[in-house]
Amino acid sequence: MPEQAKFVTSRRGTRHQPEASRDAILKAALAEFAQEGLAGARVDAIAASAGVNKALLYYYFHDKETLYGAVLDRFFIRLTERVMGELDGSFPLGERLLRYTCAHFDCVAESPHYAKLFQGELMSAGRGGSAHLTRIAELYIRPIAMRVSELLRQGIAGGEFREVDPFQFAPSIVAINVHYFVIAPVARMLFDRDPFAPEAIRQRRAAVLDFVAAALFTDRQAGVKLAAEIAHEKNAHHKLDPADAPARRSTPGEHK
Amino acid sequence: MPEQAKFVTSRRGTRHQPEASRDAILKAALAEFAQEGLAGARVDAIAASAGVNKALLYYYFHDKETLYGAVLDRFFIRLTERVMGELDGSFPLGERLLRYTCAHFDCVAESPHYAKLFQGELMSAGRGGSAHLTRIAELYIRPIAMRVSELLRQGIAGGEFREVDPFQFAPSIVAINVHYFVIAPVARMLFDRDPFAPEAIRQRRAAVLDFVAAALFTDRQAGVKLAAEIAHEKNAHHKLDPADAPARRSTPGEHK
Repeated sequence: MPEQAKFVTSRRGTRHQPEASRDAILKAALAEFAQEGLAGARVDAIAASAGVNKALLYYYFHDKETLYGAVLDRFFIRLTERVMGELDGSFPLGERLLRYTCAHFDCVAESPHYAKLFQGELMSAGRGGSAHLTRIAELYIRPIAMRVSELLRQGIAGGEFREVDPFQFAPSIVAINVHYFVIAPVARMLFDRDPFAPEAIRQRRAAVLDFVAAALFTDRQAGVKLAAEIAHEKNAHHKLDPADAPARRSTPGEHK
Repeated sequence: MPEQAKFVTSRRGTRHQPEASRDAILKAALAEFAQEGLAGARVDAIAASAGVNKALLYYYFHDKETLYGAVLDRFFIRLTERVMGELDGSFPLGERLLRYTCAHFDCVAESPHYAKLFQGELMSAGRGGSAHLTRIAELYIRPIAMRVSELLRQGIAGGEFREVDPFQFAPSIVAINVHYFVIAPVARMLFDRDPFAPEAIRQRRAAVLDFVAAALFTDRQAGVKLAAEIAHEKNAHHKLDPADAPARRSTPGEHK
């Protein structure tokens, strides 16, 4: 995170864990903005929730609008790091495309507030009120979209993928990944289940990878099999997340 | 539209074209709500745009909130009619599924304001502010979702479709259809093209049908061919829309 480090160093906000304070503010702000919207969100509530005083918050972020932009940027910086890592990885081309799909899904799944916030930006765009959408589209969405389209073109040229239109297929992947989280309130009403529950996320991740692979790979059977393997690997990885598991030591039953 | 007829008859709003007045109000309200949101929308502006006086608007719709609900219902009543018509149609099962996909896409494409309005409902759901989402989910979304899932199950049982999870696949179709319109502002920024232009809609419709068919049909080649035929037929139909074409008479070159 070179952007964050530079930002903090140049301002010298606090002597104690300035990055931790900044991160706590951004996390609290995300929750508040997602709940109340930009207009309704209160900076007091964000500072209190982050455990910092309001002066420090303004010191870092200047005003509510800037803070809001920083919250959006924080998501897209992380998203870019993860999905570009997969797109430029060392796996074979088809596997990179599926791993990209999986990483994109996981980023959205791990930030349930984000989908809501970004939908809000899209909605306010029509009202001439989106100060951030142009920046996000140019800085983050365009490079990812171009890279995914390039990978699709390469796969089509090499015969690994069917002849799809990359500029249609790339946003369709994003659609399947994001929409599930956008319609979460409806799923809760209709099926009385939590779309963010770990088991629900696992099922959705597997379904998304299967859908994309089945539609894209020339050898559909091989594509679907690879998709299932990646989904399985992610589930295993999820259980072993170092943040949840005790470091180095294995406790009987912890992976149940 | 039995609901509308009954409603108007029981109130006897105007002697002249009560349905036309009511429809004009709903159209004007859709545009105003999509542009300004529920809170920002002005009933004065809606009445003026519809060419009716405010008293008549309140006579029909009681208050702004009720009018807002009626706008949402209007979309979903039409959507339900069209998609259920395809789902219960006389075509073979696989073709019914693709024609449903196409009808759903066309409903959203023809009501560009709707996607925005419904996204707003989804966003406000988390803030405890959606008075209409429960009704819409139960009255319209649940029956369609159940019918699509049933069709998918039948197709899987009969061997026509791959073994997908109907409760994952059905919302994925909706995702690909709707997301394109939700991210329209980004597409405008990045690619400097109008996602609602007729040619863009034609390309997207064909891509959606191709994606779904390629992912679903056991005989993928046959599914993709059928999808292309339906897309082609829709484009031809679009050019021959009776609202655009002169009635009964053929003018040379009109189908260019």
